[in-house]
Amino acid sequence: MIIKKIGIVSRCDHEDALEMVRNIVEHFNSKVEIAISPKTAEPLNLHDVEITPVEKMRGKGVELLISVGGDGTVLRNIARMEDPLPILGINMGTLGFLVDVNPSEAIETIEKVLKGFKYSERSRLSVNLNGEKIPPATNEVVLTTARPAKILTFRITIDDRKVEDIRADGVVIATPTGSTAYAMSAGGPIIDPNVNATLIVPLAPFKLSSRPWVVPAESLIKVEMIIPEKEAALVVDGQYTHNIQENDVVTLTMSNFPARFVETSASGFYERVESKLR
Amino acid sequence: MIIKKIGIVSRCDHEDALEMVRNIVEHFNSKVEIAISPKTAEPLNLHDVEITPVEKMRGKGVELLISVGGDGTVLRNIARMEDPLPILGINMGTLGFLVDVNPSEAIETIEKVLKGFKYSERSRLSVNLNGEKIPPATNEVVLTTARPAKILTFRITIDDRKVEDIRADGVVIATPTGSTAYAMSAGGPIIDPNVNATLIVPLAPFKLSSRPWVVPAESLIKVEMIIPEKEAALVVDGQYTHNIQENDVVTLTMSNFPARFVETSASGFYERVESKLR
Amino acid sequence: MIIKKIGIVSRCDHEDALEMVRNIVEHFNSKVEIAISPKTAEPLNLHDVEITPVEKMRGKGVELLISVGGDGTVLRNIARMEDPLPILGINMGTLGFLVDVNPSEAIETIEKVLKGFKYSERSRLSVNLNGEKIPPATNEVVLTTARPAKILTFRITIDDRKVEDIRADGVVIATPTGSTAYAMSAGGPIIDPNVNATLIVPLAPFKLSSRPWVVPAESLIKVEMIIPEKEAALVVDGQYTHNIQENDVVTLTMSNFPARFVETSASGFYERVESKLR
Amino acid sequence: MIIKKIGIVSRCDHEDALEMVRNIVEHFNSKVEIAISPKTAEPLNLHDVEITPVEKMRGKGVELLISVGGDGTVLRNIARMEDPLPILGINMGTLGFLVDVNPSEAIETIEKVLKGFKYSERSRLSVNLNGEKIPPATNEVVLTTARPAKILTFRITIDDRKVEDIRADGVVIATPTGSTAYAMSAGGPIIDPNVNATLIVPLAPFKLSSRPWVVPAESLIKVEMIIPEKEAALVVDGQYTHNIQENDVVTLTMSNFPARFVETSASGFYERVESKLR
Repeated sequence: MIIKKIGIVSRCDHEDALEMVRNIVEHFNSKVEIAISPKTAEPLNLHDVEITPVEKMRGKGVELLISVGGDGTVLRNIARMEDPLPILGINMGTLGFLVDVNPSEAIETIEKVLKGFKYSERSRLSVNLNGEKIPPATNEVVLTTARPAKILTFRITIDDRKVEDIRADGVVIATPTGSTAYAMSAGGPIIDPNVNATLIVPLAPFKLSSRPWVVPAESLIKVEMIIPEKEAALVVDGQYTHNIQENDVVTLTMSNFPARFVETSASGFYERVESKLR
Repeated sequence: MIIKKIGIVSRCDHEDALEMVRNIVEHFNSKVEIAISPKTAEPLNLHDVEITPVEKMRGKGVELLISVGGDGTVLRNIARMEDPLPILGINMGTLGFLVDVNPSEAIETIEKVLKGFKYSERSRLSVNLNGEKIPPATNEVVLTTARPAKILTFRITIDDRKVEDIRADGVVIATPTGSTAYAMSAGGPIIDPNVNATLIVPLAPFKLSSRPWVVPAESLIKVEMIIPEKEAALVVDGQYTHNIQENDVVTLTMSNFPARFVETSASGFYERVESKLR
Repeated sequence: MIIKKIGIVSRCDHEDALEMVRNIVEHFNSKVEIAISPKTAEPLNLHDVEITPVEKMRGKGVELLISVGGDGTVLRNIARMEDPLPILGINMGTLGFLVDVNPSEAIETIEKVLKGFKYSERSRLSVNLNGEKIPPATNEVVLTTARPAKILTFRITIDDRKVEDIRADGVVIATPTGSTAYAMSAGGPIIDPNVNATLIVPLAPFKLSSRPWVVPAESLIKVEMIIPEKEAALVVDGQYTHNIQENDVVTLTMSNFPARFVETSASGFYERVESKLR
Repeated sequence: MIIKKIGIVSRCDHEDALEMVRNIVEHFNSKVEIAISPKTAEPLNLHDVEITPVEKMRGKGVELLISVGGDGTVLRNIARMEDPLPILGINMGTLGFLVDVNPSEAIETIEKVLKGFKYSERSRLSVNLNGEKIPPATNEVVLTTARPAKILTFRITIDDRKVEDIRADGVVIATPTGSTAYAMSAGGPIIDPNVNATLIVPLAPFKLSSRPWVVPAESLIKVEMIIPEKEAALVVDGQYTHNIQENDVVTLTMSNFPARFVETSASGFYERVESKLR
């Protein structure tokens, strides 16, 4: 094996996922070093493996993270890593745009990957809320009304130039990776992950001439709520929610550290779109 | 005067609106009988006028309701009437698709209207929540996720035939009158109020081939939430919110009693769309 | 048999379709009277059957028309009948929104239908070009630029009220039946065929706030080209093309005679949309 | 003056435009060298100026091209230059996304520009038809049906990976500059000209899940027509039309030489979108 040490993380509310982790550990324990995240290890009662939180795995020499679950498991664990490890997703969920490997092929695929692998880099959005960093987004950041059916007004500025005041239910700010997730339901285009850009899509905009915007990834995007006494929620990758009020300022720009996805087959971005979206 | 008795209702958080009510009362007190809604009368300290809740005005012989405020004031007061009085909206708000008369023309317009008027009927949506009637909608009923960015699944049936399971942020069910309100932001078509139909528009649907539906107004539309443990909000005309849970059933059909809008000028539906939406 | 006489028409450039006609004739010749359209009969060398043009079949006592081919065959033959016979489509084409019966079930289905059938009525658009009637549309009328990528301006009036001047590549005017055909590609909603309405959808409109319109079926819709020296094409049901120039006036309204489709199974409109469009 | 030599080109079917050229020549003849394109010079009867075709102006030392007309004049003249001169557009047309200067400010603006100017570079699409180069596109290339309402099927490949077979009226392939032109009517997003990408938008696609694509500008985009016996038109910037048939292959990629637009005021891309599109 070329790869000396792997990490494993799993969704924990799902018996099949935990069983898969057990299989992987049994099969590969003698071949590579294994680190398991504490929450994954606990219900499995594993004693003879190293327990390491995902955020510390790179520091402990882990070269590759195996994520057992769905897109949510992948997204939450990438968010934990400042400089993300290459990730290989075993698909135990219902949604699977970011998880390529079916359970039946898991052992065989990991076997291959341990002999060496390529990965693709996917840019993330670094998010700043009132001057404080929150974990970056791999798919998207959504700012949306916290009270159903109450329209908000967002002021969007790009590198200090005002773009638009959007009266809408919300606004989605997505990476190219996220362009095939929530942004697409909101009416956005598909963006090839090799395009260095960020996508801004209004949700149910009041102004009928509103359109999605594609802006340079290096832009500093600033979003402010300009109507008083209204509340919004900031949701990162559909996983983490923060409350937003008047005078709060959200800024976003491309993160210095991309997500990294292990490439497991010839299937590229366009084939994935064809098979998953149609 | 041909009209013998009018009702007046106003938004109460707005000094200009209350001042307008005072003007109308002073001007017309000697010419017609006037009934004022309790909440409108209170801050005005009016003693020599009849105080009658909007829902009882028809029973007390009122022939015409004057609404001073914006679209919200009109919508809330139509909802209070089982068999709505013809309504004339004086525009004191920021939005005004349902309110035609500018403050400066208010007295003159009422003067004319009291000599006789025509009105147009606009169908309303009768709404039933778990077998119990709630006030009907003039514009639309929105079912939407109560937790930001959590997608829901709605099962829509029309006259007991299943139409579609919609995975989406929500679904808008609108009258033709409502087709130029929230439903339009969600991507719906403009429906002439003379078309006898109801409009169903998904909000940010997961399935990319989803489209708005236009169904007969007499249809019985049933909406159910088919994913457990999720919460939704049912919002009527952007004014009234009800919580919806698993197993709740919402049914909608055309109300027996339409909204009625006093026609004040030659400007019809198409001119209004042209001037207000573009 | 309750049905005494049927008509048959077929696409003639397709060996399988002609073979199907031969089968039907052989199978039913002894059970009902059969009339065949001249163009269908010719390549089949049929001598012992009545030859009658589709437009004269009703006059000759035909009660039901069997169309062998795809949607195009159905559309062209409905257009030939002023007061259309109920039509049963055997699907020998690639597209089949209007043709329900697969070849393998054709004989069996016709057998059943001859014992009595129900049909649904679908409104058609009566089209008038410079005061002269042209055959009505079952799906839609498209006015579109005759020179690629040259934008046109159409003035749309409804019952003599101006709706909109549309600068666009073209405009689609569709029946509810046509709402699931070309109008849908252009961004229109799905309209239940029981809604008494006509759909107007601009093609690639210049004004970003343009939306599809749904207007009463009884409306008189007038379309004029208001930019000189440009040419347009008027295309009916994707089958018939007329050239349109400056000063030409096209008017459309609901036809007095609907199309009639034999109902062959429990599958209604919503099931059809689900199975054909998704 | 820092600028020593300018070129002038004009639309020739427009008296005001020619008059503007005469004014510019009179005013600046003594200050800078002037070269005029032959077609512009001819109706003006100008004798004492240099006559040079636009394509040769750079070779003759011209540093800046003044285009008098609308967007069409700008687009046609950029297409004539392999390595385009910076262009300054005087707006004498009805459309003006690419022409900033109003006639009343023309002389004053040119005066300023001659003292030195900045320009922004806008990438162009290099177009290859069956192995032969045709002039590049500044806005977009449209492949569209040559016969109204006849749907086509295009196979799109990006760097030899198949993206999608599009059944549609046509397909628009646009630069970021073109994202606010025809591509936008077809439903595309707005792309900041600093994003290094190309936009692909289907026109009235048959598949309801079709979406616009944003791909890297360096991609080699190949478009083939895969249905026999149909004809298409290839239209460059709305100006030049080529006929396309079965077996024809169109390839597109970013041109080595961008268009160059003189910056005349503080108004940037976002302000222009706001003022011109809304």
